[in-house]
Amino acid sequence: MTLTDDIRSQLALQAIELPSWAFGNSGTRFKVFSTAGTARDPFEKVSDAAQVHKHTGLAPSVALHIPWDKVDSYADLRKHAQDSGVELGTVNSNTFQDDDYKFGSVTHHDDRIRQKAIDHHFECIDVMNETGSRDLKIWLADGTNYPGQDSLRARQDRLADSLQKIYERIGDDQRLVLEYKFFEPAFYHTDVPDWGTSFAQTSALGDRALVCLDTGHHAPGTNIEFIVMQLLRLGKLGSFDFNSRFYADDDLIVGAADPFQLFRIVFEVIQGGGYANPDVAFMLDQCHNLEAKIPGQIRSVLNVQEATAKALLVDTEALAAAQRANDVLAANTVFMDAFNTDVRADLAAWRETRGLPADPMAAYKASGYQEKIEADRVGGTQASWGA
Amino acid sequence: MTLTDDIRSQLALQAIELPSWAFGNSGTRFKVFSTAGTARDPFEKVSDAAQVHKHTGLAPSVALHIPWDKVDSYADLRKHAQDSGVELGTVNSNTFQDDDYKFGSVTHHDDRIRQKAIDHHFECIDVMNETGSRDLKIWLADGTNYPGQDSLRARQDRLADSLQKIYERIGDDQRLVLEYKFFEPAFYHTDVPDWGTSFAQTSALGDRALVCLDTGHHAPGTNIEFIVMQLLRLGKLGSFDFNSRFYADDDLIVGAADPFQLFRIVFEVIQGGGYANPDVAFMLDQCHNLEAKIPGQIRSVLNVQEATAKALLVDTEALAAAQRANDVLAANTVFMDAFNTDVRADLAAWRETRGLPADPMAAYKASGYQEKIEADRVGGTQASWGA
Amino acid sequence: MTLTDDIRSQLALQAIELPSWAFGNSGTRFKVFSTAGTARDPFEKVSDAAQVHKHTGLAPSVALHIPWDKVDSYADLRKHAQDSGVELGTVNSNTFQDDDYKFGSVTHHDDRIRQKAIDHHFECIDVMNETGSRDLKIWLADGTNYPGQDSLRARQDRLADSLQKIYERIGDDQRLVLEYKFFEPAFYHTDVPDWGTSFAQTSALGDRALVCLDTGHHAPGTNIEFIVMQLLRLGKLGSFDFNSRFYADDDLIVGAADPFQLFRIVFEVIQGGGYANPDVAFMLDQCHNLEAKIPGQIRSVLNVQEATAKALLVDTEALAAAQRANDVLAANTVFMDAFNTDVRADLAAWRETRGLPADPMAAYKASGYQEKIEADRVGGTQASWGA
Amino acid sequence: MTLTDDIRSQLALQAIELPSWAFGNSGTRFKVFSTAGTARDPFEKVSDAAQVHKHTGLAPSVALHIPWDKVDSYADLRKHAQDSGVELGTVNSNTFQDDDYKFGSVTHHDDRIRQKAIDHHFECIDVMNETGSRDLKIWLADGTNYPGQDSLRARQDRLADSLQKIYERIGDDQRLVLEYKFFEPAFYHTDVPDWGTSFAQTSALGDRALVCLDTGHHAPGTNIEFIVMQLLRLGKLGSFDFNSRFYADDDLIVGAADPFQLFRIVFEVIQGGGYANPDVAFMLDQCHNLEAKIPGQIRSVLNVQEATAKALLVDTEALAAAQRANDVLAANTVFMDAFNTDVRADLAAWRETRGLPADPMAAYKASGYQEKIEADRVGGTQASWGA
Repeated sequence: MTLTDDIRSQLALQAIELPSWAFGNSGTRFKVFSTAGTARDPFEKVSDAAQVHKHTGLAPSVALHIPWDKVDSYADLRKHAQDSGVELGTVNSNTFQDDDYKFGSVTHHDDRIRQKAIDHHFECIDVMNETGSRDLKIWLADGTNYPGQDSLRARQDRLADSLQKIYERIGDDQRLVLEYKFFEPAFYHTDVPDWGTSFAQTSALGDRALVCLDTGHHAPGTNIEFIVMQLLRLGKLGSFDFNSRFYADDDLIVGAADPFQLFRIVFEVIQGGGYANPDVAFMLDQCHNLEAKIPGQIRSVLNVQEATAKALLVDTEALAAAQRANDVLAANTVFMDAFNTDVRADLAAWRETRGLPADPMAAYKASGYQEKIEADRVGGTQASWGA
Repeated sequence: MTLTDDIRSQLALQAIELPSWAFGNSGTRFKVFSTAGTARDPFEKVSDAAQVHKHTGLAPSVALHIPWDKVDSYADLRKHAQDSGVELGTVNSNTFQDDDYKFGSVTHHDDRIRQKAIDHHFECIDVMNETGSRDLKIWLADGTNYPGQDSLRARQDRLADSLQKIYERIGDDQRLVLEYKFFEPAFYHTDVPDWGTSFAQTSALGDRALVCLDTGHHAPGTNIEFIVMQLLRLGKLGSFDFNSRFYADDDLIVGAADPFQLFRIVFEVIQGGGYANPDVAFMLDQCHNLEAKIPGQIRSVLNVQEATAKALLVDTEALAAAQRANDVLAANTVFMDAFNTDVRADLAAWRETRGLPADPMAAYKASGYQEKIEADRVGGTQASWGA
Repeated sequence: MTLTDDIRSQLALQAIELPSWAFGNSGTRFKVFSTAGTARDPFEKVSDAAQVHKHTGLAPSVALHIPWDKVDSYADLRKHAQDSGVELGTVNSNTFQDDDYKFGSVTHHDDRIRQKAIDHHFECIDVMNETGSRDLKIWLADGTNYPGQDSLRARQDRLADSLQKIYERIGDDQRLVLEYKFFEPAFYHTDVPDWGTSFAQTSALGDRALVCLDTGHHAPGTNIEFIVMQLLRLGKLGSFDFNSRFYADDDLIVGAADPFQLFRIVFEVIQGGGYANPDVAFMLDQCHNLEAKIPGQIRSVLNVQEATAKALLVDTEALAAAQRANDVLAANTVFMDAFNTDVRADLAAWRETRGLPADPMAAYKASGYQEKIEADRVGGTQASWGA
Repeated sequence: MTLTDDIRSQLALQAIELPSWAFGNSGTRFKVFSTAGTARDPFEKVSDAAQVHKHTGLAPSVALHIPWDKVDSYADLRKHAQDSGVELGTVNSNTFQDDDYKFGSVTHHDDRIRQKAIDHHFECIDVMNETGSRDLKIWLADGTNYPGQDSLRARQDRLADSLQKIYERIGDDQRLVLEYKFFEPAFYHTDVPDWGTSFAQTSALGDRALVCLDTGHHAPGTNIEFIVMQLLRLGKLGSFDFNSRFYADDDLIVGAADPFQLFRIVFEVIQGGGYANPDVAFMLDQCHNLEAKIPGQIRSVLNVQEATAKALLVDTEALAAAQRANDVLAANTVFMDAFNTDVRADLAAWRETRGLPADPMAAYKASGYQEKIEADRVGGTQASWGA
């Protein structure tokens, strides 16, 4: 099977947003290892992100995390991005690193702290207005570690109230996207633990409130592509945070742990009309604890592209015919034929027709950028989560 | 801590519906062991269920499963139940044992089979009208075993359409309760795998469509009491299927695997207004593969009663105070104080004041009923799932 | 990357044993669906198995299950197999379907029942002597459903004692292979739940006692290839039961749920010297609940072959070099390059050079065998587990 | 059921070692919250640990973690401990926070780094000789994040070699205890992921090499008490790290997530002869991310004591009789009768007879110690993992 012109046209529409924080150091509670050349400020992070787009043509925007990416002038940062060939994208709030949020942020029983968390989101909306961002993405670390620690119900009601206040503040062209997560950093309950909760909460807000699905945020064994299908069906899938995992929220390179699962997810995106649809944003949200960061992001967007090419190769007519015949093996074979196809050479050739390097990993390596940043970025403090 | 008069009054309101099929044989795909004295028809099952109520006062009704409990005259069965001291309750449909349903029932792409499945539910509603049942409980085995086998989305749309037709048929005083299950018997995807799907589907139907939460039907690690809280908050918790599990849907005696979890679940039921609330039905849905069936059901309802007594013992004022103070250990201690209290002696004494045996397990054993059914029920075919 | 002559030579050594029971009906506790043409006795099962070998050249032997495959004359069955182009292989015991085994077999506290279970294994050894089988494979359903039901320790000691008695009976050229399983049909504890237990128990017996690794018998998230590596390192990997799963022991077609995992497993087999090594037996142990059985087995052995071809393609020198350089991305890329290669066309071409059909699935379909058995096998009772 | 004299005597023998690091700050990769009064050096940590023993009589020793607890004079630290009423206990090595260990420590392919890691253990043995410690506990963060990153087998062989060198250095009265962990901080494979690996590796070393079982380090659903039974049976259970979890290695207060599981574990310890047996060390290894640290440790040892009292209450004769009769419900009831008993009042009364406070939590609160350390420990850097 080869990539048809139609598939090539489809592929040309792919855009995956990169997280600025992927270019800073990250790690585990045991250790954050540092790496030579790591960016020290949002400008350097954006420069690094632009390298990914330069070599792949797949990553035209960069998501920010406030306060990690606070700068004096967002106009300057925006200009720096545009000069580098990318745009600023989604703004992510952060209500999990201030001492006040030890026991909750937008769900906190203390009105002062809850308002502080709401105000932080207002600040994020202000940033969005300066950066031209459409989406406010909210991931909450809120939860409890012990049964009885707090009222599950009261927290849920306070969550609804806080979200309402934030939602009222976003502009008509802006969206609130609520991420869910099974557990961590809370270890007994999490206030937005599953897609059902995010769906119920955002449905109560309105049409511009949507669900963010992070592929690493589910219970073991969860059929993620089913959730993709369901959220698209319900008109509530706002965005993806791509990454992969073997165990918990491992935040590995997307497609690294289970490339077949990534293929199935992208297939459902396409079937449900979520592909090349501006209403569904594709983002990475990964950590590169051990591997090189810029090549790690290049590898990631290529993995998504390969999965997409394969998913577009599925012979949906033959698939439907086999399904109608209840021929389980035939239907599965049609599906697997696409997955088993090696699309890499075709993609490399096509990439060259678009003025991109056939092998983006090699091109980056040959570019000298890595050596340059390792030489230049001496002194200062490398960016990290600052946990 | 002892049971106050208020708690005793609350406990007096408890009612747990028993599943008729718990009195037939059940097992695993490897073997169904038979047991002496097992009921051979719906009348005998109802008689057995009545024994549980007689000794505990906790189980005034029996759920039916069609076609397992098909009889010539439901009026006769109803009279038999009432003569035995119990009522007929929820009617459960079954669309997983006819060869036609090999690839789906209400989600099937074949209109004929889908209509057959819908018609089966109409038949169940007819039974409900004869038995005086309020709830039609729908658990679907629908799903697929292999990626590509069928369209997840098309099935979901057909599910919605079929449920709509069934919903339109139920009476104004009747309810449709849709159960969800993580997996089994389908091993790739299940058409109603999580509470979010059941919530979305029943919300689309109307107010008399609600969610059934089976405590054994979740992914590993799922915080079930959170879902209880959320469904009560959303006004969509229609009923419980109680059982317990260490691994998958093990269908063990409720409270046997994790009594603390049962306590937390019941606590959330009470906090959310779901206790002694006719809108939330409590049912068992268990298998007694190895243990004696009637005593197994007695043990089960007692486990729920003990968990309820403990949950009612939680000092909610002290709890709220500790929560407001962010005193994690104090809040957890208040919660655990209730759980750690041994309520058995108090419950035994209170039971006697209500004309019930102090020790229902011993009372059943002493009653001679077991010896009688083992002697009487010779010949015939013992009831089972007939898998 | 293409298949080198060396890889072709390696592939020519591949042999995967088929389970006779894959050609009978199987299902779940909810329903066993029957299929037209299903074998009705061991002779017909062997005939069906021979079809798989005929079209793939990969499956030269058939495992038996006693008593499911009891026949009057094993000599006749052996001759029938050989006439059909295959051999009889591993003999599997069954101590989970007799009423006596309700509470255990070789671990039972009742000496009579334990001896009965041991005697059953002696009978299996007698069968092995007639069929010329080398391996006695023991999978035990033994376990408990409730804490306290029995003594974990006493059962483990009785297990050791029973295995010792069985081990003493096997011939010098025979082996005892002990399978482990995480759970099911026991739901609280299983007497051989993990590789550690099987390793400890077989180590206590002697060199001809080994571990059987069933790829579906692990806790969620378990790194199975690590266990493969470890057992090979310890010299204790006796055999594989291949299948795949998304949730529990789903018994799906090997490679269907996670083809990348199958690739990783086979890679460790090769690295550890377990490939084309007579000491490590490769078997399937799957259920075809919904899909066609003979094509299901053909698909399965092809999946293993494709994974093997890919694993043999790994450039181990480049891999080692990247590993030595701590270049995580480069090492992973070398690994993935092999997995991402589409080996199907090469395998088809090579198959033809060996007198085999390029497309075994199509060849079986075109052979008319399926139509023939559907027409011939009318009447009688289709083979199944008889649960 | 009440505590008999025999049970009281048994309880008097209980000793649980505390981890020094529980008295420093800990957190998640997202945030480490600080708490007023947190210890700033090993001396203050030991002082805090002594408070737990003072109020409970249960925690006579403190485990050290090198280099977190490096001091100029271990003699001084030992004297400080003894003056405070406790002893120094197990020494824990740390090979996960030096940049050299980014890709492994005792498993690293680089001889220099591997020797450095071995040397670190030699240093730990030197510390043990000064502190009078018996046990060297080794928990390794070694592993990989991506398939192909390193050779699973070569790492395992290097692990064996390194352990051998370390084992040769420990004294005749000292022990090497090897901990296993399912995952984290490595996210693809961990070099000692399960009890089987620790068992195989320590068996190869000799009698003074044993397994450490951390109750939070298993796959979802794992029956931990089975492993306890098995390791005791094999004579290889060296120590426990107690904590509890709902999801991954949450490191919550032992018994907080599943008190029934803790009861089952302690029951198997007792049945297997591991209780009050100097060969089996009981330790806590927890994090108090949100809750107060000293009271958190007091709560923890009390939880273990309560579980122990209940486990000692099991009527083992009645249990064995019910087991022999295959009376599943009766056996389970005997087991649950002990668990359901409220032992807190009895324990409080007995505590007073031993000169201990009836309510250790209240006694600590009333002691003024917390206020004192919050006032005194101003300035300096609070102890933490320094991740």
